[in-house]
Order: sequence, then structure tokens, then C-alpha cells
Amino acid sequence: MSGSTIGTLFRVTTFGESHGPAIGCVVDGCPPGLMLSEADIQPELDKRRPGTSRHVTQRNEADRVEILSGTFEGRTTGTPIGLLIRNTDQRSKDYGNLLDTFRPGHADYTYHHKYGLRDPRGGGRASARLTAPAVAAAAVARKWLHEQHGTTFAGHMTQIGDIEIPFEGWEHVGANPFFAANASDIPRLEAYMDELRKAGDSCGARIAVVARGVPVGLGEPIYDKLDADIAHAMMGINAVKGVEIGAGFGAVTQRGTTHGDELTPLGFASNNAGGVLGGISSGQDITVAIAIKPTSSIRSPRRSIDLAGAPTTVETFGRHDPCVGIRATPIAEAMLALVLMDHALRHRAQCGDVRVAVPPIAAGQS
Amino acid sequence: MSGSTIGTLFRVTTFGESHGPAIGCVVDGCPPGLMLSEADIQPELDKRRPGTSRHVTQRNEADRVEILSGTFEGRTTGTPIGLLIRNTDQRSKDYGNLLDTFRPGHADYTYHHKYGLRDPRGGGRASARLTAPAVAAAAVARKWLHEQHGTTFAGHMTQIGDIEIPFEGWEHVGANPFFAANASDIPRLEAYMDELRKAGDSCGARIAVVARGVPVGLGEPIYDKLDADIAHAMMGINAVKGVEIGAGFGAVTQRGTTHGDELTPLGFASNNAGGVLGGISSGQDITVAIAIKPTSSIRSPRRSIDLAGAPTTVETFGRHDPCVGIRATPIAEAMLALVLMDHALRHRAQCGDVRVAVPPIAAGQS
Amino acid sequence: MSGSTIGTLFRVTTFGESHGPAIGCVVDGCPPGLMLSEADIQPELDKRRPGTSRHVTQRNEADRVEILSGTFEGRTTGTPIGLLIRNTDQRSKDYGNLLDTFRPGHADYTYHHKYGLRDPRGGGRASARLTAPAVAAAAVARKWLHEQHGTTFAGHMTQIGDIEIPFEGWEHVGANPFFAANASDIPRLEAYMDELRKAGDSCGARIAVVARGVPVGLGEPIYDKLDADIAHAMMGINAVKGVEIGAGFGAVTQRGTTHGDELTPLGFASNNAGGVLGGISSGQDITVAIAIKPTSSIRSPRRSIDLAGAPTTVETFGRHDPCVGIRATPIAEAMLALVLMDHALRHRAQCGDVRVAVPPIAAGQS
Amino acid sequence: MSGSTIGTLFRVTTFGESHGPAIGCVVDGCPPGLMLSEADIQPELDKRRPGTSRHVTQRNEADRVEILSGTFEGRTTGTPIGLLIRNTDQRSKDYGNLLDTFRPGHADYTYHHKYGLRDPRGGGRASARLTAPAVAAAAVARKWLHEQHGTTFAGHMTQIGDIEIPFEGWEHVGANPFFAANASDIPRLEAYMDELRKAGDSCGARIAVVARGVPVGLGEPIYDKLDADIAHAMMGINAVKGVEIGAGFGAVTQRGTTHGDELTPLGFASNNAGGVLGGISSGQDITVAIAIKPTSSIRSPRRSIDLAGAPTTVETFGRHDPCVGIRATPIAEAMLALVLMDHALRHRAQCGDVRVAVPPIAAGQS
Repeated sequence: MSGSTIGTLFRVTTFGESHGPAIGCVVDGCPPGLMLSEADIQPELDKRRPGTSRHVTQRNEADRVEILSGTFEGRTTGTPIGLLIRNTDQRSKDYGNLLDTFRPGHADYTYHHKYGLRDPRGGGRASARLTAPAVAAAAVARKWLHEQHGTTFAGHMTQIGDIEIPFEGWEHVGANPFFAANASDIPRLEAYMDELRKAGDSCGARIAVVARGVPVGLGEPIYDKLDADIAHAMMGINAVKGVEIGAGFGAVTQRGTTHGDELTPLGFASNNAGGVLGGISSGQDITVAIAIKPTSSIRSPRRSIDLAGAPTTVETFGRHDPCVGIRATPIAEAMLALVLMDHALRHRAQCGDVRVAVPPIAAGQS
Repeated sequence: MSGSTIGTLFRVTTFGESHGPAIGCVVDGCPPGLMLSEADIQPELDKRRPGTSRHVTQRNEADRVEILSGTFEGRTTGTPIGLLIRNTDQRSKDYGNLLDTFRPGHADYTYHHKYGLRDPRGGGRASARLTAPAVAAAAVARKWLHEQHGTTFAGHMTQIGDIEIPFEGWEHVGANPFFAANASDIPRLEAYMDELRKAGDSCGARIAVVARGVPVGLGEPIYDKLDADIAHAMMGINAVKGVEIGAGFGAVTQRGTTHGDELTPLGFASNNAGGVLGGISSGQDITVAIAIKPTSSIRSPRRSIDLAGAPTTVETFGRHDPCVGIRATPIAEAMLALVLMDHALRHRAQCGDVRVAVPPIAAGQS
Repeated sequence: MSGSTIGTLFRVTTFGESHGPAIGCVVDGCPPGLMLSEADIQPELDKRRPGTSRHVTQRNEADRVEILSGTFEGRTTGTPIGLLIRNTDQRSKDYGNLLDTFRPGHADYTYHHKYGLRDPRGGGRASARLTAPAVAAAAVARKWLHEQHGTTFAGHMTQIGDIEIPFEGWEHVGANPFFAANASDIPRLEAYMDELRKAGDSCGARIAVVARGVPVGLGEPIYDKLDADIAHAMMGINAVKGVEIGAGFGAVTQRGTTHGDELTPLGFASNNAGGVLGGISSGQDITVAIAIKPTSSIRSPRRSIDLAGAPTTVETFGRHDPCVGIRATPIAEAMLALVLMDHALRHRAQCGDVRVAVPPIAAGQS
Repeated sequence: MSGSTIGTLFRVTTFGESHGPAIGCVVDGCPPGLMLSEADIQPELDKRRPGTSRHVTQRNEADRVEILSGTFEGRTTGTPIGLLIRNTDQRSKDYGNLLDTFRPGHADYTYHHKYGLRDPRGGGRASARLTAPAVAAAAVARKWLHEQHGTTFAGHMTQIGDIEIPFEGWEHVGANPFFAANASDIPRLEAYMDELRKAGDSCGARIAVVARGVPVGLGEPIYDKLDADIAHAMMGINAVKGVEIGAGFGAVTQRGTTHGDELTPLGFASNNAGGVLGGISSGQDITVAIAIKPTSSIRSPRRSIDLAGAPTTVETFGRHDPCVGIRATPIAEAMLALVLMDHALRHRAQCGDVRVAVPPIAAGQS
């Protein structure tokens, strides 16, 4: 299949470029009867919206979503939900000379060689702006999963550049521009970002997301294991270079006597698995971590080549996030929700009539 | 789609359980005209075969592959290639009591709740044995990619449990049971494994794989980015808990001035990207690392519950790898090959007539 | 996959309801470099537009298409092409009481039972209006196929109700409201339609479409044979009840000595196959015929039941085509183009490097 | 996707050639818990087996099916079901000179040009023998549909060549080699076939199939309408040139007042729709008719060309059905079952919790 679609049954197909007329998506396969209006979607979009603090791009996009189809009298009808977000702040003159060279670490070079031409305005299709339609689509998934299964999603930044961010409490996440579950370190993070910006440089970040209240049984071995599909969705987010489920790379140094989560009548005794066993959700929290690389578009001069292959130097001006990880938390939550939604429907399809004598145990520790 | 198929155009659909009559797969979409016989496939299967050293399961499976279809007079015809591997050593009595409880860290619990019943013989479908068909299918992909593009694959174990394994040279990989690119540390690794086995415990591992000679342009933004599909394939391997591309989690602490790989007329100056930019291959080496959890089936007693939900204790006997990572290297290479093959065809479909004035630069550093 | 997408590599995903804010689609997988603007698409949409004669619905829709993405400086970039058509004439009050009962022959009953609710405005998703996005998408396919392979498409109505329409010449098709390849019988057809409208009744039609200049080799046995995918696309058009390829049902009474098209150095001696042999295009014209049922929405009273299951009578007012077949010709051409486009890419993917010593013979007779 | 797979959730992937080592398929997505053994599948295979009367090919194939995976203690486990049928009677010397020319009406020419090479033994992949795996897979679908919904399938030949076969009763279908629902005309059919065989010619046929007890709600507008997917499945059967649902081409001359099936509290008053409204099953019988072309492999000499493009003459010897339609009835039933099964799962996925106040009416007339 062509690459702009994610999901098998709950399918999201996106379109749009950073500075074209509009971005959006079609959400196909949504169950009917779900109460849905723009008011369910807009708050999620607002979380990842640019221009909300001095640490992110100053591009001013309202990111107003319009539902074009798929609802009647406030309920989903089971037909595709068209979602449209008009681009309004398209200062494409900022990118005028970008067609002549390739920014290191950016998709310029690969788009050029794959397609023979590319839309340079704001990164075109490779812009992180294109995560917005997925966030909008995921708002639908989140609502359905919450209503049907009580599933909730949360995420926070756990590290930015060299600075690890201690977890202090979920209540802090919405109160700072970093999605940090922390209050006391925020001034330090802000100073770090100011320094980076002054230096014309950028940094990476690490994000953790969790889904709670996930039903047992989601995921399809062998190739569409739940964790495999989560890894696919996460690695597809712009700038992500690593994905972990549960203990992740920490599992390398664990022993089997430590790693394997024991079961008790009261629930699992630990959650090294990150909520997935054999590719199928266990009912524990799904825990995921991702690594996000530093922004490629920086003011510092870098070596590159021009279209003729001759050496040149590139400095990128324009409005860029010095750390693309800052806005990545709601995006990672969204991608996780899309995967769980799809597998919830897939599981109902195949196993909708499965009954087990003794119900699942509690999720236990996370 | 149902979960036992991987790939869009070069599609591999597997079947089989660890102790059923046979395992195998159908490889659909292979280009016609490729010289192919069992002799092209068997060597890859032999690499991951059980019973080849004292550090892996002593199950004795010949793993002889039979080509059932898709070739005529030694060439692929473009029709599906059926591959069959009969199971011969099915000592299923070893697993007799496994239906009564759930091994911690194993898929027992989730299969039980998803499907309502499960095949307990040797782990059934959740057995790592089910990676064999993918390895067989990948042998076809590897041959085609090598003939068409000169692409090659290699991999090695970089860490086992607490022990990091220094890279000494690719020539060592085939000369030890660990797929270590190292000669001097092998005695230490063997001693470590013997100690683990004695302790009735298991450990994790870290594997690195690389593809060289990858053409520029493979991958389909947004959701089927090459790295996203690689992450999907890798996380779908049994016991994998983490995936990195290029710098991976190391990118978190990198700055943009370090991470973004500069371009020069002679090639890329570094390869933090791991060969993928914007989801599309850059022509650099594709570099991937994976984390593998410790084997769940261990002799040490662990807490669990029985089918009625009452507490019990589980000890797993039978023939298990104390480190499933030991045989993971050829599997990871295979999964990488399957993804690249699929995207090579997808790229030719969409962009088969794209011509760019100046050819790609050299791969540069890896 | 969810059902609003057609195609594997050239993928069209539609959204929209007859009287919602907008209809449209996302075209994913289009090759890059194709010159494309709204001017390439609008003429095809205009052909199937309502309100163009007294024999079709008097709904007045401009059906102006907007390209939202996927082009840069007038060329396709290889990224998804978003196409939007705003609904402007939504006199939904005409349909106010339709939620209380089910029109015979209409989708009311099945949507109600499948989804539990339905959008009654203008038939909602089941409206023939939803063929417009496919026609728009197909305009892209037609342009590419013509540029790459010289493929062209044509179609005409061959029968309306009891009246067979003799073929007089392709030049007539655009000169009458019926897409008849005929000039002399048009007054008779108009009188027939006027009579039907007065009677509050409707009639069926038969349409023939042909693709010329189709390359040899399109189609993938076994299940995605070219003719199988054509049948899928055609039967998916609203109101279609039958599909024929080549000799169609006429093949039942043919003998093998008549049916099998002989090959000569100058081309095929006949075309009973309709351009497809073994599911693969032969280079001959692809010839397809479809049967279209009479419009279900008629003024004549019919028996039905209400939501409580009690008997009632339904008469349908509002603006309906007395023969939905009248506007079906451009739609059938469009669906044929979508299938050929998809298979052209699929064929290039798998067989892009196949070379045969002697080139294909000419198409020969049609 | 590559073409050897049918279905989205209940997925059948086939492999094999007529005279290779084996044919078979993988059935992925089957719900767990279904009692299943070879004894459920073999009877369906036996119906379409060659060599059962003098009117079909005298090839002697036992067509014994082996279940390779997907069951445990006689029940499906939800994992893929591998089905294997060894080829035993491979008299491939019969086809020795077939690589030098192209049989009119056969896939020789198109396979040659698509793939550059082809397996000539018994038609290779293009052989009607490749319908056997679908019949085997459909046996699983039929059992599940019957247990869950009471769905049953039946079919019969309604015309062979010029001879229409009156319906006398379903009980006759199994009592003659033609699958005719008729007893009195059988001698006439046999004489007709004997005459054809003597003349070295072949003829077409018309088959009708019906599914009863189909739940309301199966089918996904717009592109995966139930009838669209049925048309796809039917046109994909070897030699099929036409497909009708319900009134089919008869709908062309019907008026709306006749065609639209009225609803009454006791059920539908007629079934011109063939059980599908708006692409969704209505609960009425699904009625399908197909046209099958005359066998292409005939003894009578036909004009063709050789590989160099020079004119030549072809006569086909070997063991061929003089009317491939004779064995088509169980195949058509099978394809219908596969489509319904897939959509039953798809419907449960999306609408598994839809509840409607008043249940569906009875199926009514067929």
C-alpha cells in the first residue's frame, strides 16, 4: 500500500504539505454511534500547536479542524470522517534558496533523489506539521477507547539534551512548555533552551508515553504484534531514532529472574514487559519510550553540496523548533492511541465471541 | 489485514507452530527470472538452526526447506514461492503441564485470554522457531537485492547480559556460537553462559545489523517510512524490546551540530542517521540495533497463577536457549532484508522513471 | 482494510456525504513529475455533473474541485493529492421524513441495520454523488496512463430500458445527454425519458466502456487478476448489478473454436477476451459492459415498513435521476482508469526489468 | 498487495502450480475455537476433483488435503491454518512443446510478456487446478458461517452451451456430473458433451450460486461493497467472463416499480437486489450468476504465432475439461463463502456493538 495510510481497520490517510493550502486526513472504519464534534478534537490539536511558547517555532497557526463528513446529528455514522486543517501562516519566502542545496540531517537529499523534485516550502511533506492530522484522528480513537474500555493516555518528556527530568507528578505536564512531569526543574530547562537558541544549535529529547486501561488481547502475531505496530507508529514520527517497550534496552542487562513479570491473583508484580507479551496486550499499562534527534534546521553553518554536487555551506534560518522533542509528547500519545484503536477493532473481529472462564487479573504495577 | 503477513509487494505469509507438522511461508510478489533453488536458502536457515552449540536449545531440527512452487527450471516465475519446513523433533511431552498455568514473561497468559485456547507444545505459535520461515524468505530477498543493487547484510552481537563485546572484525562472526565480531572474548562469553545455565537463569543481548549498498530512495512517507517499517519488523522478532536506527537513543544527548550528517562531494561525513533521512534511504549504510530480553522459560521458580486464578509456582524445564539473543543475529538480518526488498519494489513502482541530473554521492562513513 | 479505499499502489480514499459540508478524496501513490492542475480534473467532473439536462437530477452543484496538496509548481511531487469538492446545494429539507421508513431498492434498510443510524440527507454516503471523487482521482490516472502508455478511455450507453442504442460513432457521445454513440435515436430516448418521468417511474441502462492502448502484462494472478479488479470496481458503482468482460455472458453459448482469439503476426484476430487473458492484459482493448438498475427513488407509491416494523407506503419526492445510468458512463470510464493505473504501477514494481525478445503483437480487432 | 491473497481479515494466500510439487494456501484470521479437521475440508475438495466423470479431465488427482497448522486438539487456535495438497499425477511431458507458441484464449501469451518466462506444465499457475486451495479454505469459512449464522451455500449449472437447464430440484445437484438441479435433461447434456469432445471443441456455461441465512449488515461502502467483493471473487475464477447479482443484466429492462424489492412485515416481497442493497447485505438470499467461457485448450487447430512472432498452428492435446464450467459450481460457492466470511469479521469489527430497536425482517422471497 502507499505510505500515507496507517491502520488496517481504523485507517487514517493523511495529505498535505507544510505550506500548501491545507493538511488533513480521512479516518475510515470508525464505529458508528460515537458522539463527535470538533470540540472533541481541537484540544488535542492545541497541545501540539506551534507558537505556544518561546521554545517552539513562532509560526502562528490556528490549526482549526473542520469535520467534513462521517457524522450526523453529532454522532459518527460509520462512514469516513474527513478532517481538514487549513494552513494560514505560509511565509514560504523564508525557504526560497532551499532548493539549491541539501540541509544535513534533513529529508531534502532523499526526497530529491527519490522523487526527482520536492516541495521546499517549510519542509513540504517532511515537516513535523504533518503530525497534526494524526493527532486529530487520534482524538477520535481516544474518545472511543475511553468510552468502550476506559483506556487513557499520558506522556511526558523524561530528558532533554543532557538533562534528565525527574518525574514529580502528572499534574505538572500541562503547566510547562516541555510536557515535563516536573515543576522544580523548569527554569533550568528554559535556560538550557535559551542557551541553545543563542548558540544556533539544537538538542534531542526522550519521551515516555503510557496507555492505561488497555484490554487484554490486542495484537496479532506474528508480524502485526502490538509492540511491532507501536514501534512502527513511533518510528514514523519525525526525528524519532529509537523506540523502547517496557524495559527496552534495559532488558539487555536484566536476568530472566528479574525481567519476567510474575503473576499474582492481585495482578502482575512488575511491568518489564511494558504491557505486551508475545505481541499481545496483557492488560498492564503499555509503556513506551522514544528518542528524538536534535532539530536538523539550525543556524550554525554546516557542510553540504549543491544540486550539481559541488561543496557548499548551509545555514538554516526561518522559524524552527530548537528541540522538536518539545512538542512530541502529544504526538506520541496520538500514535499509541491509533495503534490500540486499530487493534481493538481487529481483536473484536477475530475473537469477538471468545469467553474465558476466569477474567484477567488486575494490571498491577506499571 | 491479519497479522501473519509482512510486506506490501514482496509479501511473506507464514504459518506453523513449534511442534505441529510443519512451518513455512508463502513469498508472493517476487520478481521473475531470479535463479533460485533450495541451496540459496538452506545456508541462511542453518545459521539460526537449533542444536548447533551447547549454548542454545538442544532440540535437533534439520530445518530442511523445500520449495513447493514459484520456480521453473531453476528460475523464479513471478508466482508465489511456497516454502515448507517439516518439524521433526517434537518432544511435546516436555510441555504437558503448561496448559495449567502461565509462565511469567511468556505469551501463555495473553494467548489464553485472546484466543480462549492455545497450543502449548513448545510455545506453539509464539515460539522463536517461527522466525525460520522469515529467514528462508529473506534468503530470496537477499539474493535479489544483491544481484540488482549489490546490497549486502551483516550483523553481530554487541552485548550479552552485562558483557559488552568489542568489535574486532567481521571475519569472526561465523567462527563462534554468539555471532560476535570478536575472537578474544569468546571464552569469557562461554563461561558466562555456563554460569547462567547452572543458575537456571537467562540473560538479554544487544544485536547490531547493517545493510550496505542500499539504493537511495527506499521508503514511503509518512507512515511507511523505511525506518518505521524496519522498527516494525525488528520489534516483531520474539523477545525484542527496543529498536534503534543510527545514533538511536544516543541522539538524545547529541546536538544538531553533531548529529546532522554533513554532505561532501566524496560522501556523507558521518552516519548518525543510520542511512535514513525523512523516512527514505540515503544510500548510506542502514544501521540498526535491537535489545533482546532474557529468555522467559527458565528453571528458577517464579510466582504465577493457575487457570482458576489461584497462586502457584512455575519452573520451566525442556530445551530452551538461555539467551534467545544468541540466535537473533541472522533473524535480524533477515527482517531487514525483507523490509528493504519490499521497499525496493515499492520504489520502482512509484518512481521507476525518475531521473536526477547528478547521481547520488557515495555512502561515506558508517 | 476499511472500505473507502480502492487500489494498492495508486490508492484513492474517499470521504463525504451527499449533503454534508464537502466530498473529496486522497490520491496516494501518484508518480512524481506529472503536470497537474485543477484544469486537468474539472472537465471529467463536469461530464458527470448533475443539472446538465432535464433528464437528470436538477440539483445544482458546481462540483468545483480544489487540489489541496501533492503538487509543487504545477507538478505532482509523489506525495498524496488531496482533492476537495464543497457541497453547495444541500436542500436537505426534501428528505425530512426519510428517517421513518425504508425506500424499496435503496440502502436505507441496510445502513440502518448495519450502523444503527444513518444520514438520510440525499442518501448520505449511499448517494451516487459519491462517485465524483473517483472521477476526479481518475482524471489523474488517465493523464498519467496517456502520457506513459498512450492509453485512452471511452464509453457509451448501449441500452436504456427496453431501447437498444445502435452504435453510430464515437463523435456523438458528447453531443447528447445520454452518452449515446448515436444521433438519430436521441429524440426517441428523450421521449422515453419524458414518459418515465411523467409516470413517476425509472428504468435501467447498459453501458459499455473501453480502454485502448493498454500495455501487455497488467494484472496479478490469482486473486487480483485485472478482470477481477475491474469487476470489483464496476460492481462498486452505485446501482450496478452486472459486469461483463469481452464476450461476457455471450461466452456461454460460444464454442472454443469461436471464443479463443487467434493470434497472427498482425495482431489478434478477434477480441472475445476483452483484452484480458489469465487475468493479465493482452494489449488488446479492454472492453467492459455493465448493467445498471432503475433508480430506486421514484414517485410511485411502494410498500415498505416503518422503524417499528409496521407496514407503510413510500413515495419519494426530491430531485432524482429517473435513470441513474444516464450519468454512469464517465463514472465507469473512471473506475476502469483507476484499476489500470494501479496495475500499471504494480506491474512496474514486480516486472520492471523484464525484457522479452520479441515485442507484443498489435492489439488487433476490438 | 501482491495478488495471491484474498480477503482483509479472513485472508487466504495461495501458492502452487498445476504440475509442481504441491499446491496449497494459508488461511489467516480464522476465529479460534472452531472444531476443524481434514474431514471438514475433504468433501468440498472432492466435489471439484478431476477424473470423476468422463466429461472432465481424466487427470487422476486424489487432492488429499493436510492441515499443517492452526489447530490444537481439533480446534482452531486463531493462528494461520496451513493447507497442503500434494500434486501426484504430473504427466508434464504432455505439455512439452507448449513453450514454443501461445494457445489462443489461454494465458500463455500474457504470462510470457508479463514475466518473461512461464511454467508450461499443465498451465502452471494459470491452471484451474489452482481453485482447489480456495475450495479448501472456503470449507473453513462455510463451517464457521454455518455455526455462527446458519448460513448455507448452494449452486447449480443453469446453462451449458446452448442448452438451458431447467431447475427441477436441489436434490439432483449431487446426482449428476454437471451440478445440474435437474434429472430429466441429463442424458441430453451428456450427449451434447460427447458430441463436443468428438468435435475437438468446447463450450461455455452459466452457473448460479446462492447463500442463505446471511446476516444483515455485511459489506463496506464505498469500494468494498459486498457485491463488489463478490464480483471480484467470481471474476477471479478461471474462465469467468461475466457476473450478475440478483436481477443482473435483467435489471436493464426492468422499471423502478418492478425492480425495487418492497418490504413487508413478513419479509421482502421479491429479491431483484440479490440480497445486497447499497453494498450491504439485506438478509435476503445472496444470488449470483456467472458466465464461463469455453475451454481454450481444444484439439481443433487454431492460428497462433511462435516465440519469434511467426505464424503457426496450435492444437492442444492432453487432458482438458471440454467445459470448464462443469466443475465450476463448487468453486463459485467457495468464493462466495470466502467473501461473506471476510465481511462477517469486518462487520463485527466495526459494528459489533450496534443494537437496533426492531430486528430485521425475514429474508422473504428469493
